[in-house]
Amino acid sequence: MTPPATPPATPAATPAAALILFTDFGPRGPYMGQMHAALHQYAPGVRVIDLFADAPVYDARAAAYLLAAYAPDMGAGAVFVCVVDPGVGGARPPMVLWAHDRIFVGPGNGLFEIIARRAERYEARRIVWRPGKLSPSFHGRDLFAPIAAALAVGEAVETVALGDAEWRRHDWPDDLDQVIYLDHFGNAITGLRAASVDAGQVFSIGGERLSRARTFSDVPVGQAFWYENANGLVEFAVNQGSAAQQLRLEPGTETGFL
Amino acid sequence: MTPPATPPATPAATPAAALILFTDFGPRGPYMGQMHAALHQYAPGVRVIDLFADAPVYDARAAAYLLAAYAPDMGAGAVFVCVVDPGVGGARPPMVLWAHDRIFVGPGNGLFEIIARRAERYEARRIVWRPGKLSPSFHGRDLFAPIAAALAVGEAVETVALGDAEWRRHDWPDDLDQVIYLDHFGNAITGLRAASVDAGQVFSIGGERLSRARTFSDVPVGQAFWYENANGLVEFAVNQGSAAQQLRLEPGTETGFL
Amino acid sequence: MTPPATPPATPAATPAAALILFTDFGPRGPYMGQMHAALHQYAPGVRVIDLFADAPVYDARAAAYLLAAYAPDMGAGAVFVCVVDPGVGGARPPMVLWAHDRIFVGPGNGLFEIIARRAERYEARRIVWRPGKLSPSFHGRDLFAPIAAALAVGEAVETVALGDAEWRRHDWPDDLDQVIYLDHFGNAITGLRAASVDAGQVFSIGGERLSRARTFSDVPVGQAFWYENANGLVEFAVNQGSAAQQLRLEPGTETGFL
Repeated sequence: MTPPATPPATPAATPAAALILFTDFGPRGPYMGQMHAALHQYAPGVRVIDLFADAPVYDARAAAYLLAAYAPDMGAGAVFVCVVDPGVGGARPPMVLWAHDRIFVGPGNGLFEIIARRAERYEARRIVWRPGKLSPSFHGRDLFAPIAAALAVGEAVETVALGDAEWRRHDWPDDLDQVIYLDHFGNAITGLRAASVDAGQVFSIGGERLSRARTFSDVPVGQAFWYENANGLVEFAVNQGSAAQQLRLEPGTETGFL
Repeated sequence: MTPPATPPATPAATPAAALILFTDFGPRGPYMGQMHAALHQYAPGVRVIDLFADAPVYDARAAAYLLAAYAPDMGAGAVFVCVVDPGVGGARPPMVLWAHDRIFVGPGNGLFEIIARRAERYEARRIVWRPGKLSPSFHGRDLFAPIAAALAVGEAVETVALGDAEWRRHDWPDDLDQVIYLDHFGNAITGLRAASVDAGQVFSIGGERLSRARTFSDVPVGQAFWYENANGLVEFAVNQGSAAQQLRLEPGTETGFL
Repeated sequence: MTPPATPPATPAATPAAALILFTDFGPRGPYMGQMHAALHQYAPGVRVIDLFADAPVYDARAAAYLLAAYAPDMGAGAVFVCVVDPGVGGARPPMVLWAHDRIFVGPGNGLFEIIARRAERYEARRIVWRPGKLSPSFHGRDLFAPIAAALAVGEAVETVALGDAEWRRHDWPDDLDQVIYLDHFGNAITGLRAASVDAGQVFSIGGERLSRARTFSDVPVGQAFWYENANGLVEFAVNQGSAAQQLRLEPGTETGFL
């Protein structure tokens, strides 16, 4: 990669910072491995961690709330490659966002909206660099991974200023009143921050009334409840059971809160 | 991490030793990545390997037999972070076990019972250190990962003696007479060590009679058999087919052996 | 590992080259982690990347076309451990193939046929080295991983010449006229190289007629099409939908092209 121009004034990643993958590519198949290989080519000494391989498919909005909640865990200086990009090969700008002492690389389709909205300040730039061969369907491998790897090793990358109008989504709410992820246990993560919900809140959902608990072992086996999960979001759960099955929850199910 | 006190006399991990994850968090979603990030923060130079991300959900007993069979492959000096912990946030002690030249970090709910029972000697200690912020539902990330990472880089961690009565499960059998894992092929791994079963043993299961074979290619395509798997356990299989489907096996299905 | 004899004249992997896993072991369960641990033992400093953990199960032929299409992305010098090996423990030769500046280790059951056929020149050798303990069912862990790791760090491994008759499959076609992989989105990857198909080709499949498009965002939401995927293969897709569901595709479904 020939590192051309305009390094933003924002400092590069610290040496021990990791590269973080956040995608809807799926935990199966070749795509995550191809991302790892592309990152390895340009940043062979940097750890790569899969945060999500199954972010909400094609749904940059739901993914934006998930990313904002889980990014802080990944360590200051981390460089994120984020790909939930149904418009790949189309008009949305490829971009880099510096915010919260982290760097985010991906499509300017709203995926970084909530990260930006919760930041005291941020800097957004459009990626100008293009690889020798850019496939129309896999910018994650061909464009975003090389850029992220370059940033992770402190190289400058060719970017220009990107105005808010080109990528912000001011019409999206501050919290998303729906289920945005069902985990392996059947717990349902919502886009609501627990800090924005009264502790006495009761959710009526799937024919049951869910009160707040501190954690699983505080309620009887089989009982549904809500709690502040380890990343600050409202989560519906059943002690040693599946909230998804018991309450018939799916991604997109509204919580009825707002 | 401020490494306070009482390093056990047991030696630390060797430099090339890896950190091993054994959890029921699921191969999807953020939890394994959050564990990797937590380990990376404290032990940036140590390899992290996912052994199981889908150990038996909520079932520390079945998981204990699985862990004991698969831990030896992970190399002497390896430091395991093991989380099958339905009682997280409750009374079970967080603990470290030194046994078989390996270190195991996780909940004292029986998950390490079979490891300990098969060890000539072991040392168990209760983790006293607490992080600045301990979520009630994700001790894997907040407590066990930092402790394991510290041990992997040879740091002392704050622990106190832990009596057997607080974590051993003497009532569990030496071998578990049931299916404890169904793999991607539909092979059914049991909690029985093949060394404890006569070579002439015939299992009657799912309406078929299964005799022992050496390996898949020794029986006709479509035939069910049992064999000593590559980790010493009795496994039910079908050559180029799915034992789970053909024999209607599930985790917990009893083998009828004992 | 005692590195005995006959290093092939082909140069070893470059220092930054990675070890690449291509298997049908499944993304769940212990097998990929056991492979990582085996590789770590012999090549602790080398990055290991999972390319496929869910290659076509038991189907070395379909897997051969997938491997040939995706191997080039993994970087020159990469050492591949490839295991789609229903005949493990039987007569097929364990082998190493040097081709396309990459090294492939695995069973001589045709899995490397398409790699070899598309190479200007290649060198194939039979693995003679055996580990102290070789399980009859997991040569990936016991035999292929140690050999691959040794090659990745530039060690010689004990091999002898391997004639084409022992492993080539000259009867297999140059392109495979069927679906060989369904991805997380429901896109259907075929064994046909797009370069071998006329741009005006229309596929009649699942009751629909699929024309070529450049990428997803070039067709209306819900429309089925075919395109040259990012690895040069013909792929059936639906913009923001599942081709697998909409067109009722499965691995093995014929495309009707040949």
